[in-house]
Amino acid sequence: MDFGEVLSILKNDLNKVEASIKENFQSDVMLIPTIGNYLSNGGKRIRPILILISSRLCGYNNGDKHITYSCVAEFIHTATLLHDDVLDEAEIRRGSPAANMRWGNEASVLVGDFLLSRSLTMMAEVKDTRAIFYFSEASRKMVEGEVLEMINPFNLNISEEKYIDIIKRKTASLMSASCRIGAILGKRLSTEEDTLSNFGAKVGIAFQLVDDLFDYIAEEGKIGKEIGKDITKGKITLPLIHLYNNASQKDRKLIEEIVKSGDIQDEDFNKIIDLMKRYRSIDYTMDKARVYIKEAKEGMSSFNDSLYLNAILSVADYIVERDM
Amino acid sequence: MDFGEVLSILKNDLNKVEASIKENFQSDVMLIPTIGNYLSNGGKRIRPILILISSRLCGYNNGDKHITYSCVAEFIHTATLLHDDVLDEAEIRRGSPAANMRWGNEASVLVGDFLLSRSLTMMAEVKDTRAIFYFSEASRKMVEGEVLEMINPFNLNISEEKYIDIIKRKTASLMSASCRIGAILGKRLSTEEDTLSNFGAKVGIAFQLVDDLFDYIAEEGKIGKEIGKDITKGKITLPLIHLYNNASQKDRKLIEEIVKSGDIQDEDFNKIIDLMKRYRSIDYTMDKARVYIKEAKEGMSSFNDSLYLNAILSVADYIVERDM
Repeated sequence: MDFGEVLSILKNDLNKVEASIKENFQSDVMLIPTIGNYLSNGGKRIRPILILISSRLCGYNNGDKHITYSCVAEFIHTATLLHDDVLDEAEIRRGSPAANMRWGNEASVLVGDFLLSRSLTMMAEVKDTRAIFYFSEASRKMVEGEVLEMINPFNLNISEEKYIDIIKRKTASLMSASCRIGAILGKRLSTEEDTLSNFGAKVGIAFQLVDDLFDYIAEEGKIGKEIGKDITKGKITLPLIHLYNNASQKDRKLIEEIVKSGDIQDEDFNKIIDLMKRYRSIDYTMDKARVYIKEAKEGMSSFNDSLYLNAILSVADYIVERDM
Repeated sequence: MDFGEVLSILKNDLNKVEASIKENFQSDVMLIPTIGNYLSNGGKRIRPILILISSRLCGYNNGDKHITYSCVAEFIHTATLLHDDVLDEAEIRRGSPAANMRWGNEASVLVGDFLLSRSLTMMAEVKDTRAIFYFSEASRKMVEGEVLEMINPFNLNISEEKYIDIIKRKTASLMSASCRIGAILGKRLSTEEDTLSNFGAKVGIAFQLVDDLFDYIAEEGKIGKEIGKDITKGKITLPLIHLYNNASQKDRKLIEEIVKSGDIQDEDFNKIIDLMKRYRSIDYTMDKARVYIKEAKEGMSSFNDSLYLNAILSVADYIVERDM
């Protein structure tokens, strides 16, 4: 099954998710739905997709809670993006000017807060405190990951292990919770919940590894945000960590100078890319992502073969095959 | 009963709230508890006080959920302050440099988000989705109030009604939810829940009216933040709305010039204060706050006389009598 087929199996559910996103962005304070509509477009909806498939896989068939939770996960994710964009002073997000550029930082912080409170109300209405617990724990870990990233800028000495810890919190925790929700909705055993949660965590790590790689090698315009931003902002990700750890003394010096200059020109950026190719840092990162995906898929062997098992495994493959 | 006696009745509970705040600020990401400790000091803890008294008043006696919710309300409030300070570029908060000045905007946004997710986990652990619903609705309204305020800067033509709508959302909604929680914990009738919720809403409006007044008339150093900030930032509050609506044509022109200059010197600020005294805008605002307090207290007549009824009425009086 390829990713296009996954989308077509989920089509009905995904349409309902889009409607729910639109509906829950409503407010008599008109600026909120205005920004909402602006933000609604262009997201890949990976977290909703994970929730929808995992809940179907776990036999959830008697209601629309999977739609509500999909909207909740997308809101939590979007709130994080809004707050991140303020912190990063992002100029482009999802291929358009970032909301903070268009409406100002105030609006981005507040609309992010609106989404968090809205998602909380939606969860309260479903009345499952276990789901609330896992989503809130994911939110907390996401913030911790962001703080860890924030306090380690321009730190070329960060270990691969520490970096993985950061992305596990920042990105993998919400994907992990999203997959667990499916098992909660399907009232599956806690061992199955854990299996899905581990799957989501590994897929999440791989997702971020690929994302971080794209910041070096994607074609501008294709990933919907600027490239070269991480290194410019002092955000040290795996391709650079690998490069720095494996480069010759002379090359390490050059890397340090470029990273710490705080003002990276195209020429410098291209030097880094060349070094990454020479030291195979790009391959290393991609291989790492593939290993996480392989482990994620292997962990699912306790589930019987089915349409939705194939679908969720296809999503895992898509994470490392996508070109945006 | 005076406010000092209220604090002494609640002493045990308030100590537990402080311990809970400290405990729930913990994280292996050390910057978070560091900022937490810095923030913990100096708050008036009005929302916890409302929760503690209203839960005792409603006969809640068999547990520590009122402590948890007090911590939740204080966390939601503190998160709002952190995000506000970023938006307002505040320099002083609770008598000390605001967190954004000391650790940067990033830290303020993220620690605010940490507090929101932490409060959510705490509520999930109590497992009462009605409480979660009311707190999340309060959070949403607070954001809407902030957005309404943000999109009306320097707007001297804002009506008194619109202003009251803004502060009802921004400030009164969380105090209203805090009072309602007491009735929820005491398993009281929904009519009593509504009575307490209305009490909290009116007290909250009065609280914000007095706060807005302090921005004009408090002695610097006493209220723990800068004075004159509202008018400088274009935040139009009731004293100024009343003044502008009642001033002569000539004075209105002067007010417009000062407000719209965007750079208000002490001399200009003193001119505004003099005009407010002349047109009795300060008395008008204070009288308005007193009316809300009077109505809040009258609304509580359905409760039998008791120690905790007296205590909650004293809190209402304190709102308009406090000098910080």
